[in-house]
Amino acid sequence: MSQLRSTLEFLVYDWLQAENLTSRDRYADHSRETFDAVMDTCERIAREKYAPFNRTVDTQEPTFDGEKVSQPQCTHDARKAFADSGMLSAAQPYEKGGMQLPYVVEAAANSFFGCASISIGSNLLTVGNANLLRVHGTPMQQQVFADNEFNGRWAGTMALSEPQAGSSLSDILTRAEPDGADFDSDALGARYRLKGNKMWISSGDHELTENIVHLVLAKIPGPDGKLIAGVKGISLFIVPKKLVDTDGNLTGERNDVALAGLNHKLGWRGTTNTLLNFGEGKYPVRGGAGAIGYLVGKPHEGLKCMFHMMNEARIGIGMAATMLGLAGYYASLEYAKNRPQGRPTTEGGKDAASAQVAIIEHTDVKRMLLAQKAYCEGALALNMYCARLVDEGRTGAAEEAVRSKLLLEVLTPIAKSWPSENCLEANSLAIQIHGGYGYTRDFPVEQYWRDNRLNMIHEGTHGIQAADLLGRKVRMQDGAGLQLLAQTMQATIKKAAARPELAQYAHDLNQALQDVSAATQAAWLTGNPQEALANAVPYMQAFGHTVLAWVWLDVACKVLEQDASQALAANAGRINAISYFYRYELPKITAWLNVVNARDMTCAQMPVEAF
Amino acid sequence: MSQLRSTLEFLVYDWLQAENLTSRDRYADHSRETFDAVMDTCERIAREKYAPFNRTVDTQEPTFDGEKVSQPQCTHDARKAFADSGMLSAAQPYEKGGMQLPYVVEAAANSFFGCASISIGSNLLTVGNANLLRVHGTPMQQQVFADNEFNGRWAGTMALSEPQAGSSLSDILTRAEPDGADFDSDALGARYRLKGNKMWISSGDHELTENIVHLVLAKIPGPDGKLIAGVKGISLFIVPKKLVDTDGNLTGERNDVALAGLNHKLGWRGTTNTLLNFGEGKYPVRGGAGAIGYLVGKPHEGLKCMFHMMNEARIGIGMAATMLGLAGYYASLEYAKNRPQGRPTTEGGKDAASAQVAIIEHTDVKRMLLAQKAYCEGALALNMYCARLVDEGRTGAAEEAVRSKLLLEVLTPIAKSWPSENCLEANSLAIQIHGGYGYTRDFPVEQYWRDNRLNMIHEGTHGIQAADLLGRKVRMQDGAGLQLLAQTMQATIKKAAARPELAQYAHDLNQALQDVSAATQAAWLTGNPQEALANAVPYMQAFGHTVLAWVWLDVACKVLEQDASQALAANAGRINAISYFYRYELPKITAWLNVVNARDMTCAQMPVEAF
Repeated sequence: MSQLRSTLEFLVYDWLQAENLTSRDRYADHSRETFDAVMDTCERIAREKYAPFNRTVDTQEPTFDGEKVSQPQCTHDARKAFADSGMLSAAQPYEKGGMQLPYVVEAAANSFFGCASISIGSNLLTVGNANLLRVHGTPMQQQVFADNEFNGRWAGTMALSEPQAGSSLSDILTRAEPDGADFDSDALGARYRLKGNKMWISSGDHELTENIVHLVLAKIPGPDGKLIAGVKGISLFIVPKKLVDTDGNLTGERNDVALAGLNHKLGWRGTTNTLLNFGEGKYPVRGGAGAIGYLVGKPHEGLKCMFHMMNEARIGIGMAATMLGLAGYYASLEYAKNRPQGRPTTEGGKDAASAQVAIIEHTDVKRMLLAQKAYCEGALALNMYCARLVDEGRTGAAEEAVRSKLLLEVLTPIAKSWPSENCLEANSLAIQIHGGYGYTRDFPVEQYWRDNRLNMIHEGTHGIQAADLLGRKVRMQDGAGLQLLAQTMQATIKKAAARPELAQYAHDLNQALQDVSAATQAAWLTGNPQEALANAVPYMQAFGHTVLAWVWLDVACKVLEQDASQALAANAGRINAISYFYRYELPKITAWLNVVNARDMTCAQMPVEAF
Repeated sequence: MSQLRSTLEFLVYDWLQAENLTSRDRYADHSRETFDAVMDTCERIAREKYAPFNRTVDTQEPTFDGEKVSQPQCTHDARKAFADSGMLSAAQPYEKGGMQLPYVVEAAANSFFGCASISIGSNLLTVGNANLLRVHGTPMQQQVFADNEFNGRWAGTMALSEPQAGSSLSDILTRAEPDGADFDSDALGARYRLKGNKMWISSGDHELTENIVHLVLAKIPGPDGKLIAGVKGISLFIVPKKLVDTDGNLTGERNDVALAGLNHKLGWRGTTNTLLNFGEGKYPVRGGAGAIGYLVGKPHEGLKCMFHMMNEARIGIGMAATMLGLAGYYASLEYAKNRPQGRPTTEGGKDAASAQVAIIEHTDVKRMLLAQKAYCEGALALNMYCARLVDEGRTGAAEEAVRSKLLLEVLTPIAKSWPSENCLEANSLAIQIHGGYGYTRDFPVEQYWRDNRLNMIHEGTHGIQAADLLGRKVRMQDGAGLQLLAQTMQATIKKAAARPELAQYAHDLNQALQDVSAATQAAWLTGNPQEALANAVPYMQAFGHTVLAWVWLDVACKVLEQDASQALAANAGRINAISYFYRYELPKITAWLNVVNARDMTCAQMPVEAF
């Protein structure tokens, strides 16, 4: 069994008790065997159709000849294998052709793809798009658009950013105006004409599927013809690349969505990233000006609808960062076991005449491996925990469902940001272990590092996540989310305190939790957001390390419950990883929280001309 | 004046008082004007011949057709402009055609090239090579080889590593055997035949110069024909690519040094990096087997000779990392000033109807800029300080020269490692400020980040620097080096303590110095190198942060002495940068030193099978 598989099984089955979900109606037909079968399939497809081509998609970037995008054959093959596996509709109900799979199992199974080649596929975007329509679309929109995304015929995108408005969605300029007098009576939804440019659209154009379903944010002008300022004016539209009828057949009409250009990226090159022009007139359609789009939900509630997709996407990014981190860990572990170099340090120094050892015998190499393990397996545990919360929110008993949703809200910025930062650092350590070889393109680790650098940027930058955490998540409902997280951590602390091997860590976590709580108070003491949020990123870093310390401690409780002697090497490794995390990492929070507590304004007050 | 120029002038003239050097005989003909003229020339060449082509050398990697290496024309032009400027022999005496320039001015002037395009040239290697020959070569070797490197005809390399021996030089297998009975009577030096492979040789082959002078480490077999184990068996040889006579004319004979392949790297692509075969028979020469090489210095003392070059190279790497960091800082500063996005946070939240502001107005962007400034200008100050120590070591009064050399010895691992780690992080922040644009190849910052990743690897990895620092430098001469550094820091602390604005920082630095000293003791308490060195890298990180805090404090003293009101924006910026460093960075040392003090063996004791 692969190391990733066994780690996932420990986390999902042993730690998170995923089999218990089969006692719920929705998952009643499932069992450990059906879960394992899905994992088997995904692991096989990832091994056969993804991993061998990870470098191919890096070196053979997508190209655009003015009409069509070209990508290597392996990208088409990987897309087909994924769609054929049924994973696009894994979570959908049986009557929709789905598997009714719990999200935690779906996420675990999908992780094989992320580890094998993060950028060759962008299927999670399609699933997220269709899931959004499942919640906010009309029955007809669901049938025509969502169903054809889930069944693999079409792909989906989310089109939010514009060249002049990246993180600042209130400034988007794309306009949507009613398309004729009968605009409100189209069976596919109120019909509008859209004009504007969308930037950073992943999979915004390609030839992998028959059609592409864009979910586009745009503003409907007010009676005065002006766009409403701020996010309140934003509405959401389905804008298909090619127009379709109510049976989901292509009508043969190309919609006026034109690829203006491909972005040439540092990494993540298997996925196109695009600038799209909507309604610029390259493909005039049905005698009018503008791209045809169908309203989703109510006017001016577009951002609320889109957030449904963004939260899912943020957890997906956390998983992507984690899998790139683990891919680098496995690669550098393999290298370190097989590369002879140097001799062990002994009390008498080094004996030049003795045989060389594998570099994994050197303490500093072990340190770099253990750091990667602690970061990446910890991040995986956190993300699996969040996935489990999604299931609880969907199928748990009423009160538990509410609690799970609240806890997930608080944890989402950490699930996205923490792996993006720390698993990137893990990839850097993987390069370092390889020495000069790691700096060459003959080994995979430099690509993991490049690919991973995207994750602190897309789906809300690090700064946006931090502002969300400290500005909103820990304060919402009078701090109920933070309180719930604290209670949940306390339960772990109590369990761990009873175990002599973990008592010190339980004590440390309790202290860290108090420190984070105190810093939250201190940040908001003056009630001035300028002061409170001046150090939102250091706050998030400390918060994240504390969350990870908690996750590791909870994992360690399970390890000792299973195997107190740690006779199993994997369990001994987990106990070492938690030791590493508590001794080398958790103490870092003091430095981060110092500036939060002081509401340090050094950065805020730096005059622009003094840089 | 460019920002880099004014920062250099402040550091070199105001802070380090470089003009005082003109009171020494060697520099008596120099003045501020002659120094400035050199800076002018380098700044201009860097602007005209380097900066415009930095992306060109990234996208047009060197290629090899089996006989010759091709590089873009701009690489040839940059090399020619540099050689024509006389900078190759800037430090050489007048009678050798040099400028007798102090090293601190040479290093400052060279920094323009690093900032404009780090990889288009590799002239510092040539200078380092020739400098080594100046110290260890015979008069004839100096005249034939060093002079022709200094005058720009030929280029130089250092060939240490082998495919199976990277950091572990004791395991090199390249053999050198006397070439015939008359081997010892060659005017160019004792003549040997070399056979072996050398890996990671920068500028190991190219067509930029008429000839290439390789300095090669190899082992002379003992009487039993076996190589001596360990570093003691290593000797140093000049192995020219093309053979030359005693007048420095090419004889028309190609030496048996063959390019086996170019390494394809993550970055730093303007410089070839090569695997070279010595004496494999591709270019048989003078009827014998093996590449012809001339012994430098005494047999078996090769590594000692080479260390002369390596120390210089290590400071050069620190400067390279620093200049890449500054290049990213300047690029992201420019971007942040010009990119409108979002609105300021006010006490009442955000006003969607107000105009967007440049992103430099956002506190988190300021934080990322100030971090870059604190890292990169701090690193520049440290490296300039080290360069000044080189001058002091060369031309200072006897006792002062000895002290300067000792201090430089202790600081070298920090001058190399600290910028490599922290200016790389600065480059990541530069990407982050650019958002999605920073992840594209349309902006320069992603290349700086890729280029900079090399610096923690070459010229001794991070782990090697840490072992050198904690294993050797702070212990040598009964800790005299560390003691000298502490005294030097104490002088700064005393100066700063008298200034109310700096008194707190003086106190903090004093504490940090005590903490580092105590950790040094604690690490070696048991005298067991396995325990002492188990956390050598965290020790080096803490040591480095303390050194940088000291450098910044000393810089701040100069700022206040000059301009107590900080009316000058640049000086206000420096005071903010020191505030940032002491509040956000220096407190991190506690976490690093914890594990050093505890001689934490978590990593060392991790069983291999538990990873």
